Amino acid sequence: MTDHSTRAALDDAALDDIAQLDLGRATRRGYPEAIFCQGKTVDQVARIATVLVGQPQVALFTRVREEQVTALLEVLPDAAYDAEARLVAWPPVPPEPTGGPVLVLAAGTSDLPVAREALLTTRYLGRQADLVVDVGVAGLHRILAQVPRLRTAKAIVVAAGMDGALPSVVAGLVAAPVIAVPTSVGYGAAFEGLAALLTMLNACAPGVAVVNIDNGYGAGHLAAQIAAP
Amino acid sequence: MTDHSTRAALDDAALDDIAQLDLGRATRRGYPEAIFCQGKTVDQVARIATVLVGQPQVALFTRVREEQVTALLEVLPDAAYDAEARLVAWPPVPPEPTGGPVLVLAAGTSDLPVAREALLTTRYLGRQADLVVDVGVAGLHRILAQVPRLRTAKAIVVAAGMDGALPSVVAGLVAAPVIAVPTSVGYGAAFEGLAALLTMLNACAPGVAVVNIDNGYGAGHLAAQIAAP
Amino acid sequence: MTDHSTRAALDDAALDDIAQLDLGRATRRGYPEAIFCQGKTVDQVARIATVLVGQPQVALFTRVREEQVTALLEVLPDAAYDAEARLVAWPPVPPEPTGGPVLVLAAGTSDLPVAREALLTTRYLGRQADLVVDVGVAGLHRILAQVPRLRTAKAIVVAAGMDGALPSVVAGLVAAPVIAVPTSVGYGAAFEGLAALLTMLNACAPGVAVVNIDNGYGAGHLAAQIAAP
Amino acid sequence: MTDHSTRAALDDAALDDIAQLDLGRATRRGYPEAIFCQGKTVDQVARIATVLVGQPQVALFTRVREEQVTALLEVLPDAAYDAEARLVAWPPVPPEPTGGPVLVLAAGTSDLPVAREALLTTRYLGRQADLVVDVGVAGLHRILAQVPRLRTAKAIVVAAGMDGALPSVVAGLVAAPVIAVPTSVGYGAAFEGLAALLTMLNACAPGVAVVNIDNGYGAGHLAAQIAAP
Amino acid sequence: MTDHSTRAALDDAALDDIAQLDLGRATRRGYPEAIFCQGKTVDQVARIATVLVGQPQVALFTRVREEQVTALLEVLPDAAYDAEARLVAWPPVPPEPTGGPVLVLAAGTSDLPVAREALLTTRYLGRQADLVVDVGVAGLHRILAQVPRLRTAKAIVVAAGMDGALPSVVAGLVAAPVIAVPTSVGYGAAFEGLAALLTMLNACAPGVAVVNIDNGYGAGHLAAQIAAP
Amino acid sequence: MTDHSTRAALDDAALDDIAQLDLGRATRRGYPEAIFCQGKTVDQVARIATVLVGQPQVALFTRVREEQVTALLEVLPDAAYDAEARLVAWPPVPPEPTGGPVLVLAAGTSDLPVAREALLTTRYLGRQADLVVDVGVAGLHRILAQVPRLRTAKAIVVAAGMDGALPSVVAGLVAAPVIAVPTSVGYGAAFEGLAALLTMLNACAPGVAVVNIDNGYGAGHLAAQIAAP
Amino acid sequence: MTDHSTRAALDDAALDDIAQLDLGRATRRGYPEAIFCQGKTVDQVARIATVLVGQPQVALFTRVREEQVTALLEVLPDAAYDAEARLVAWPPVPPEPTGGPVLVLAAGTSDLPVAREALLTTRYLGRQADLVVDVGVAGLHRILAQVPRLRTAKAIVVAAGMDGALPSVVAGLVAAPVIAVPTSVGYGAAFEGLAALLTMLNACAPGVAVVNIDNGYGAGHLAAQIAAP
Amino acid sequence: MTDHSTRAALDDAALDDIAQLDLGRATRRGYPEAIFCQGKTVDQVARIATVLVGQPQVALFTRVREEQVTALLEVLPDAAYDAEARLVAWPPVPPEPTGGPVLVLAAGTSDLPVAREALLTTRYLGRQADLVVDVGVAGLHRILAQVPRLRTAKAIVVAAGMDGALPSVVAGLVAAPVIAVPTSVGYGAAFEGLAALLTMLNACAPGVAVVNIDNGYGAGHLAAQIAAP
Repeated sequence: MTDHSTRAALDDAALDDIAQLDLGRATRRGYPEAIFCQGKTVDQVARIATVLVGQPQVALFTRVREEQVTALLEVLPDAAYDAEARLVAWPPVPPEPTGGPVLVLAAGTSDLPVAREALLTTRYLGRQADLVVDVGVAGLHRILAQVPRLRTAKAIVVAAGMDGALPSVVAGLVAAPVIAVPTSVGYGAAFEGLAALLTMLNACAPGVAVVNIDNGYGAGHLAAQIAAP
Repeated sequence: MTDHSTRAALDDAALDDIAQLDLGRATRRGYPEAIFCQGKTVDQVARIATVLVGQPQVALFTRVREEQVTALLEVLPDAAYDAEARLVAWPPVPPEPTGGPVLVLAAGTSDLPVAREALLTTRYLGRQADLVVDVGVAGLHRILAQVPRLRTAKAIVVAAGMDGALPSVVAGLVAAPVIAVPTSVGYGAAFEGLAALLTMLNACAPGVAVVNIDNGYGAGHLAAQIAAP
Repeated sequence: MTDHSTRAALDDAALDDIAQLDLGRATRRGYPEAIFCQGKTVDQVARIATVLVGQPQVALFTRVREEQVTALLEVLPDAAYDAEARLVAWPPVPPEPTGGPVLVLAAGTSDLPVAREALLTTRYLGRQADLVVDVGVAGLHRILAQVPRLRTAKAIVVAAGMDGALPSVVAGLVAAPVIAVPTSVGYGAAFEGLAALLTMLNACAPGVAVVNIDNGYGAGHLAAQIAAP
Repeated sequence: MTDHSTRAALDDAALDDIAQLDLGRATRRGYPEAIFCQGKTVDQVARIATVLVGQPQVALFTRVREEQVTALLEVLPDAAYDAEARLVAWPPVPPEPTGGPVLVLAAGTSDLPVAREALLTTRYLGRQADLVVDVGVAGLHRILAQVPRLRTAKAIVVAAGMDGALPSVVAGLVAAPVIAVPTSVGYGAAFEGLAALLTMLNACAPGVAVVNIDNGYGAGHLAAQIAAP
Repeated sequence: MTDHSTRAALDDAALDDIAQLDLGRATRRGYPEAIFCQGKTVDQVARIATVLVGQPQVALFTRVREEQVTALLEVLPDAAYDAEARLVAWPPVPPEPTGGPVLVLAAGTSDLPVAREALLTTRYLGRQADLVVDVGVAGLHRILAQVPRLRTAKAIVVAAGMDGALPSVVAGLVAAPVIAVPTSVGYGAAFEGLAALLTMLNACAPGVAVVNIDNGYGAGHLAAQIAAP
Repeated sequence: MTDHSTRAALDDAALDDIAQLDLGRATRRGYPEAIFCQGKTVDQVARIATVLVGQPQVALFTRVREEQVTALLEVLPDAAYDAEARLVAWPPVPPEPTGGPVLVLAAGTSDLPVAREALLTTRYLGRQADLVVDVGVAGLHRILAQVPRLRTAKAIVVAAGMDGALPSVVAGLVAAPVIAVPTSVGYGAAFEGLAALLTMLNACAPGVAVVNIDNGYGAGHLAAQIAAP
Repeated sequence: MTDHSTRAALDDAALDDIAQLDLGRATRRGYPEAIFCQGKTVDQVARIATVLVGQPQVALFTRVREEQVTALLEVLPDAAYDAEARLVAWPPVPPEPTGGPVLVLAAGTSDLPVAREALLTTRYLGRQADLVVDVGVAGLHRILAQVPRLRTAKAIVVAAGMDGALPSVVAGLVAAPVIAVPTSVGYGAAFEGLAALLTMLNACAPGVAVVNIDNGYGAGHLAAQIAAP
Repeated sequence: MTDHSTRAALDDAALDDIAQLDLGRATRRGYPEAIFCQGKTVDQVARIATVLVGQPQVALFTRVREEQVTALLEVLPDAAYDAEARLVAWPPVPPEPTGGPVLVLAAGTSDLPVAREALLTTRYLGRQADLVVDVGVAGLHRILAQVPRLRTAKAIVVAAGMDGALPSVVAGLVAAPVIAVPTSVGYGAAFEGLAALLTMLNACAPGVAVVNIDNGYGAGHLAAQIAAP
């Protein structure tokens, strides 16, 4: 323990009044720390980016607001920005993929922002990943047509709102783990994603791993870990 | 309004200290009142049964406890009793069925008590009804094998606990209305049926009518109304 | 199953990156898919409309925002738009009605947007439907005056917020199924429609089918199915 | 304030290790303190009764368990005990009633225990009170037949479980305040009385005062206060 | 029943497409219907006001928005408007008070809008009413200093947010009923007034009648009924 | 960090298959680990007690069941057992008290089990502590009579169920921190202590520290820390 | 799809009135169906076991009650039964392990039943798995001492109740995915595992996959999938 | 009681229509009343400030909005304003610190506003206090590096959102009480701070005192009381 905590402490960059970047995380865990931008000021995000400039690892800024993007692109001019996923990545090109393929499903068109956040996170963390859209259970033939493709994946991310029923159905068809991301898509008794969350936690098919509502980043991270070489 | 309320008032049987039976309901609505036995004493249920003896209409006692059944069978010796459905019916034989066929699905074996309560209620209210068991979405081929049969029904009752995903899937396959009954089957974040209830209220396929958790009686009643001739 | 899924797959229109329209649904279920516009971008809605232009079936766009309407009317210039119901329909004139009459009740003036969404959905799906406004239980004579009319309907939709008590009262007066739509009208312990939803799920009169809060579309769809010829 | 608090302190009986009886409450408020027996041991209840023996005021023991009743009747042999209401009262005969009449309604037979607790509390606190049973809104003619009687009351208590819709209906018909007591009667989404509680808090007719679930004592107390001479 | 419902039906004003005013309510209940303006359009409120112009009874418009006020004052130019209480009243001068005095307490300054809505409602419904501000339990001497005054009231309204503890304390000091109005004042675990609501429903002193969160109108209405001559 | 974690690891007793006692906690934190007995088998508790026999520190077993007590007293025959507080302590005599005095208040008689658990915990952790019973806010003079005594305490624990209003009142009267313990005393909308918990979290007087529902042990532990010399 | 659904249908064993075993699941998913025994009668479980006797695959019966075990051991006399995990497995010896090692952590002794269910499920599904007990964050040195061992695992299951904080801490230390199982250990605001569930869904370290409360089976199944060769 | 309440009543300043300042609180409790500005109008805040000008005690205005600050600075031109903490203090310089040191921890950068409100409150109430930022459990070495410093504090405030796990970890390392402030940082199942709140209430390490979500003021107040000389 000593060695590790000492090394990590040395690695931590000096932004002491607002943050202590966990730059040792890539070494310790194999995956770098992401910067969760919600609730941070533009200035805070920019200062954090400045420290990351000289670092060798991938930097992901999640849930970025428009004004934060502007500030980030001043510090990291060639960073990649995906507006739908609200993600800024640097360096802009994902690493060469290793490990097994990951498939990301969006139950409906409205689930795309979350699904894309998962997709891009998985790619920037080093896996090959593809996206399939609008395969909700109201028209079951759409997901059934994907079964052969589903069975090639090492990990499957399923983003779904409303009834959140898709992960149960998918998990019953494949051997790979299904990472279920409830989305806040819906209204009324969807309770901002709570209904889908509960559905997924109670999936009658085993093999469903649930993450927080709208947490595309977390789903993509898990997929990258599960499909690691 | 006068006529009606006067007539109904005349019809109401005299148990004034504990109940006022709504004997006019069969005339008014076409379906008789059922006696909800939970929360009633054995004596109260027996006294109510005594009044119903001379009535021409079907009497259903729902959610009966064992000791209530004993008392009921003393007053109505030839009544039918289904222990799994916790239902006592009198007269014991359902009327000759009219109207379109009703199909009752139980997602899993544990959903059988609720599904049977729906099945028997539908039959005693005058419809033909059949039961299909264990067709949950974890093994999708089981429900797909039933599609032709599903499409013959005028109304479909689906009892499901845990993720409650089956009604969404069924509704996407048929033209008839689907009556979804969440059951309290499950544990943890199933929250005694709340998860299944929310799933069903948010069904991504339209055509799903939801009733209260474990309310097989209400589901069967609705099915009888929808499939009425 | 093969035939069906193959045919449906052929029917599915090519918008692969954002949606897979379930154009086979009208054939399969008898009712076309509606486009739920909340959470979709203006561009996504417009692209979907473009595909629907050449289709023979009714297209309903629900929960449309003003800017989506503008885009839709460019693609479908003669579409009908109802601002209160937030609904765009194409073709603009509903089909000739078949089946039994449907009655839509709004407990209060504030429930009108939801009631109108149900009313128009029922009409566009092929049923005759009428609207009765402001018949809440605080002035019981208003609903009692409607009893003869209520008894002519094959299905009754009741939209109510606050205490959500109207469906219980209506169901006790008629033979037809009552489709209860809780609305988010109210404040405080109405909890955005939750109070009305729970009231309706616990209706002491059987024959009440509940749909999601503010789900006028779902209620109208169910009514059309129940009152189908 | 000094005078009062000093006097009250003097009045307080000496049971210091388990309770400080608020014997001054009858003087201060006009109504004596009741002993809430749930959560108290048999011994604690008996010791409290011993102190009350010599007091001039009415003593009510609410929510008594069988074994507490036995102990109480040893200390207060001529006390009245109502098993359904779970209430022990001493002296056994209520005082001569003053003030206006109170009416207590039970929506269904299962609501009787709560309704009787309200009824008896009102009587022991000095008001005339009567009970009307099974007038739920599923058979509206039953409550409508009571309208003339309802209009004679100075306060109306309505105990109702499940959808809890009766207080809204009653309040719309009378000038007197309606005290609504949600009961835990029901199952599933009744959530032990929560559904009825929310319904009553959102009553679309003003004039509904709500008390805690199953709180017949509190409802009867309020009725006695409102109908005081 | 016939007479009444017929008369009421005749009384109802013709706004059939948006509302059916319950003009018979003042005769039936002794208190006129109020117009709940939240969720109504400016046009709907103005049309309703037009009907009320010729009526003899008091008209209260609650929860009015600024643009509704402008429209209302065009129809009813001399109506009274209280911005803090969001209330428009016509005629502008309350009737001569009858019955016992009512006292309205605001636990804190932030509870004033709700307290004033209660105060004005009580006055326009015909009772004398006064307001006492900022007597929360954090500085107990403030409420204790009011005890003599509290004891003169026939009904006491207490508006409180956050912990909602004031009604319990007040009810323990007086003989009159206490009408508790939880307010949405607070943050975090106040859950928009839920915490105060639960506190009040569980008041350890009997004699507390609870209304909906922020429902100053309902509280004032109840106070007027309880303190009626 | 190395030194400490090494030392602690050495201190840990060997029960590897069921527990790793944190025997270093007294050294590290100044207070020993308690054994939470709920959810442990009789055998597990007994084995843990065996290891503690030879230790120099105080051992507290909380939430013990009767059968666990029997087993514990075989291993630690002279341990002290308080049935009301469900606590076993060894050695049986608390240490000589140091630090400032602690006062524990029970709002009602039914709160005594939780209050006594706090009282005894504080004493076994080395503080002087006293208990005051039945000082709820329904009879305010009871708590006001204790003000001088309240002001001598360095920390005050307040156990209260139902409305949970007492901590707000107490905190407004003293300089010392108030540790509020919601209890599950109550019924209906008390929701097993949730109402009291929310009240306390929203206390309008600052200086209220809240612990878990029925957590007398945690409250007593905090009091001992705060009143440490 | 045709081939598969036909084959699966052929595989399904004939228990049509109570269940349709999904015997094709092992072929389709690589893992056999487990029999969830909660909510099933003794007779139903026994009949299901009879069908499984002749099957080549592993059969797991989860959440078995004592009387079900007796019946199962009559049908499958040499089955293995683990009382703590409430699991019956047949054949009794797990298959030879393949894939990477799995580590199962129990935060406290009371979490052992859930942890053991996960451990055994993983083993019977073909992985090597070990258990580490009582490494909760209150004594952080206990988990820190396990870091080298944690880093050898391909998947880590963490069962924790109360605050559910352990998975966040573990995920921050390793590269492998952490499967978090909230347990219902705790009381009060633990709300039967809800608190731990929410903690885990909000884990500040990415890489945490959550399953249902007390769902040791699901956690073990996921671990087996993730650590598959 | 007389003396005290008389004195306090005399101290109360005359703003009778909107507030009754509790100017006696500093004398009675040792800490002055703060002005909670949320829900107050600009004018109300300004009038309150006017009264405080001549008072000898510290005045804190919490949760101030920008327009309130402008008005306050007109009345108290040299007051201190911290935008991040939304706090105005007068006089601008905190008193000379007494008592033991207080440490305030922010788990993440987004928790800074709440942490700073606690920090400044503690200082203005007379204690020395320091801030440590971004020591969340996802990178455990960061908090472990602070252990020696943590052990010097007499009270530790920990502000954390999302999983809220930090207070459990800190409490397990020190002897001083830990004041846990859940923050509303997070999304989805964080439910605006509810997840962190529940985590903290269920902290497996004793010694954690919880305050309301985002209640930095309350946390700082408690810290000042606990660390008082």
